[in-house]
Amino acid sequence: MTQTPVPEKGAKLYEGKAKILYETSDPDLVIQYFKDDATAFNAQKKGTIVEKGIVNNRIATVLFQLLEENGVKTHFVRKLSDREMLCHKLTIVPIEVVVRNIVAGSLSKRMGLPEGEVLPRPILEFYYKRDDLDDPPINDDHALVFNLATAEELAHIRREAFRVNELLIKFLDPRGIRLVDFKLEFGRGTGKNAGQLLLGDEITPDGCRFWDKATNEKLDKDRFRRDLGKIEESYHEVERRICEA
Amino acid sequence: MTQTPVPEKGAKLYEGKAKILYETSDPDLVIQYFKDDATAFNAQKKGTIVEKGIVNNRIATVLFQLLEENGVKTHFVRKLSDREMLCHKLTIVPIEVVVRNIVAGSLSKRMGLPEGEVLPRPILEFYYKRDDLDDPPINDDHALVFNLATAEELAHIRREAFRVNELLIKFLDPRGIRLVDFKLEFGRGTGKNAGQLLLGDEITPDGCRFWDKATNEKLDKDRFRRDLGKIEESYHEVERRICEA
Repeated sequence: MTQTPVPEKGAKLYEGKAKILYETSDPDLVIQYFKDDATAFNAQKKGTIVEKGIVNNRIATVLFQLLEENGVKTHFVRKLSDREMLCHKLTIVPIEVVVRNIVAGSLSKRMGLPEGEVLPRPILEFYYKRDDLDDPPINDDHALVFNLATAEELAHIRREAFRVNELLIKFLDPRGIRLVDFKLEFGRGTGKNAGQLLLGDEITPDGCRFWDKATNEKLDKDRFRRDLGKIEESYHEVERRICEA
Repeated sequence: MTQTPVPEKGAKLYEGKAKILYETSDPDLVIQYFKDDATAFNAQKKGTIVEKGIVNNRIATVLFQLLEENGVKTHFVRKLSDREMLCHKLTIVPIEVVVRNIVAGSLSKRMGLPEGEVLPRPILEFYYKRDDLDDPPINDDHALVFNLATAEELAHIRREAFRVNELLIKFLDPRGIRLVDFKLEFGRGTGKNAGQLLLGDEITPDGCRFWDKATNEKLDKDRFRRDLGKIEESYHEVERRICEA
């Protein structure tokens, strides 16, 4: 397998709550650096999860590779180091895409339903990616009228999000993990990926709800959000099941 | 013009924030009684708008007749008295349907946009009709998965809501009223209307934002919500423009 040479790390492009993006000597590639910082409730709660960056980089690497092998175009190029991932550069579509299989979190509150209720089919939700507005829920009309995405992009996102859901469930179920819900972000590619939407961001316990299949124990950021303890242990347990199995 | 005889008024079926529904001696007809009570912010703010019930019954009568004449099926049968309207009985679809032409109210807050921004095309929004949950915003997936409506019903609602919007704009514009946004409810008919969705509820300044075309002065329930004064005067002004012109 021939690998493209690693481009030189450049200036910081953007620092988010859990990751830093650096430009590289290749205008179409960026380095995604995974931090240990954890935030919840739109950064009203802040903390650190020891080695989260290392664990999440490993988990995201396995899951992006899984998706790529199954024909889902992602920004993943390859893992560079413990905390660094080489990625295709994207212009992020400002929509947080949530797929839900089981009622939990904000859906439970919004619809007045108990956490744990299994949905008869997955639900897709869009949120406007705007921290200053607390990422409000939007529908297709808002996305289109406010030029967040085109109708073609929304159709692609919907199709890909459900496909990712199916692939992840198939992978996680035999590893004893129930995929309750998860957040995806998509972005428009540059260079050879121009004109294409790629799956971006990360797929980790920061943005997914993973429950133990046997006990329904939470193995994700809800342990941090809700002060449930055993935070690092849960991230490591997910890493073990995903990366070693 | 032959009119069906007025059925006998029966027991109270339901009392809402602004209306009371009574059953009648005809199982497929109800009487909708318009109260003067005004509420806002999900009934956290309560008050009375003098003669609102009379004014709203007149306005709704004219607007329902306008829609019926243009082929929109509504629950309106006829006005019975100052505060009473005879209606086809409906099983209400628990979705509040909002059409927006201009940014105002919750859309302004949600998307961080100034009130008054004209949208390039109308936006449709669905809210789950549940007072105890503060009528949360939902998308088509929620409506379908939680069995609030079928895909066919949603398609019908979308089509009819935009058609109502066009008819209302065409009617209101020459009367000096800008239709900023409005809320509709639909319901499933009984008897000869079985299997059909009809437009229900009311179309009045309680559930529509009406701005004066020349001055952008608010002529609707925002005067009550926001303590702007001249509440009764504004309702009467809308009544005058809609019912006398």
